[in-house]
Amino acid sequence: MTLPDYSQGAAWQRGSYVPIAQASVPLTDWGFLRSDAAYDVVTVWDGAFFRLDAHLERFLRSCSRFRLDPGRSPEEIVAILEQCVRLAGLRSAYVEMLCTRGQPPWGSRDPRQAANQFYAFAVPYVWIANEEQRRRGLDVRISGVQRIPPASVDPTAKNYHWNDMTMGLLEALDAGADTVLLTDAQGNVVEGPGFNVFAVRAGRLVTPREGVLEGITRRTVMEIAQSQGIAVEARALPADELRGADEAFLSTSGGGVLPVTRIDGETVGSGEVGAMTQRLAETYWAWHRDPRYATPVRY
Amino acid sequence: MTLPDYSQGAAWQRGSYVPIAQASVPLTDWGFLRSDAAYDVVTVWDGAFFRLDAHLERFLRSCSRFRLDPGRSPEEIVAILEQCVRLAGLRSAYVEMLCTRGQPPWGSRDPRQAANQFYAFAVPYVWIANEEQRRRGLDVRISGVQRIPPASVDPTAKNYHWNDMTMGLLEALDAGADTVLLTDAQGNVVEGPGFNVFAVRAGRLVTPREGVLEGITRRTVMEIAQSQGIAVEARALPADELRGADEAFLSTSGGGVLPVTRIDGETVGSGEVGAMTQRLAETYWAWHRDPRYATPVRY
Repeated sequence: MTLPDYSQGAAWQRGSYVPIAQASVPLTDWGFLRSDAAYDVVTVWDGAFFRLDAHLERFLRSCSRFRLDPGRSPEEIVAILEQCVRLAGLRSAYVEMLCTRGQPPWGSRDPRQAANQFYAFAVPYVWIANEEQRRRGLDVRISGVQRIPPASVDPTAKNYHWNDMTMGLLEALDAGADTVLLTDAQGNVVEGPGFNVFAVRAGRLVTPREGVLEGITRRTVMEIAQSQGIAVEARALPADELRGADEAFLSTSGGGVLPVTRIDGETVGSGEVGAMTQRLAETYWAWHRDPRYATPVRY
Repeated sequence: MTLPDYSQGAAWQRGSYVPIAQASVPLTDWGFLRSDAAYDVVTVWDGAFFRLDAHLERFLRSCSRFRLDPGRSPEEIVAILEQCVRLAGLRSAYVEMLCTRGQPPWGSRDPRQAANQFYAFAVPYVWIANEEQRRRGLDVRISGVQRIPPASVDPTAKNYHWNDMTMGLLEALDAGADTVLLTDAQGNVVEGPGFNVFAVRAGRLVTPREGVLEGITRRTVMEIAQSQGIAVEARALPADELRGADEAFLSTSGGGVLPVTRIDGETVGSGEVGAMTQRLAETYWAWHRDPRYATPVRY
């Protein structure tokens, strides 16, 4: 008997741990067939979860919003996440917890009759931008694809409804850009695939308030700003205001504070990674060692 | 060695046929993690596919719209669908074909680098309404949840973005209704979970034109109407116009023409299943024996 190979990652499904390559969702789970699911992602950096409590709390809130019950206590969820990281032997990891609707008894179309299913997995840390992109700053395209509005799907409950993001991303990549920002029906930028956005104007931060995921990294940036006496406005951010900003950056669990130096081919500010962006990014990583936010993994 | 049990349905995945209970999608497939997929459903009734060509054509169009490549010719797809039905031994079946994005190489966030995956399955015929509901007519609730707009996700390309449908459905079921109709931002009814909608007014049919899946059953109803000299208008359908209709019905592969006799607790027309609805339903089933539309399964 060969030992399972967890080197690419480990997952928890239907009561047991499996190598990530073997992890699967039943084809008939409404989590797939109706994208009826909620999820969250917490990262591990240098052997410690970052803001584990905040991610856990948001996950349970997302589940509750969609009337999904992971059927596990927060403590049980943490134990499963930790075991996935441990099995995979990862010092830095992308750790996802998720809950699917499951499937109602045959013939029923009533979501209330389904037994919801909890899954989790840990894989190596995911960067939304590669090293070169992080050094020179990202080239972002503002898409004409509108982000699914809050009147249709609650963006504060983390979900897999990403077709708008994917179509916008394809358009951006085809145009030679690195990634994409979507807009709302009024032409304000809202968010992109896996990140929130900030503009820096005259020493203040502006970030969209409505129609976005309330990112934990977004919150961290706001708290860093507060701790450093930098004003933050959460409000509608017209695309042109972002284009005309002194600096712009994305916030994401997939890399923290990521500089944006070009929008639709035009430089933002000086075209170089800005001083404010740099300072926030440095503090973001410094906070990973702060015991207020770091929960060491018991390997 | 025990023979596989296909009695609950059969699926095609990653190059082989499996019992439906064993069918799965990798947890890391973007078809799940980003609901990045297209699908279609064709039914088998009394041993024959109904309008197979139309469903196949729409499936390939949906894939193309989302830049997904099932990597199979139409003939290959038909052969797989037929084999799923054959293995399951079903005379009446719900047959789904689908294509997922797959997963880009590790570390990449570029959908263009993923190898798309084709799946199919056949399970016993699915009714959207049970026998009693079909006899008395459905009690439908018009939801305040807005259907995801076309500016965000193209509704004519069949996809799994159903959170709006699911949230509306839960609200309707809690209120004691049978199912739900969603509206657009202007308060027009558009569609519900798995069906289009029609109003009958003064002997004419009205059905929403924008923001809806162009259902094959919807098209069939329009063609039946044309063949019987009944006028059809495809245009915006305000919720109040539907409420005040002489008759109302849903069109779906999951049962054909389904009468609606109550909306938000108020009777529609006489409160009985209408004569026009009945006539269209009868012709819908009669057309299942018409060689123009029926493709016999080679069992």
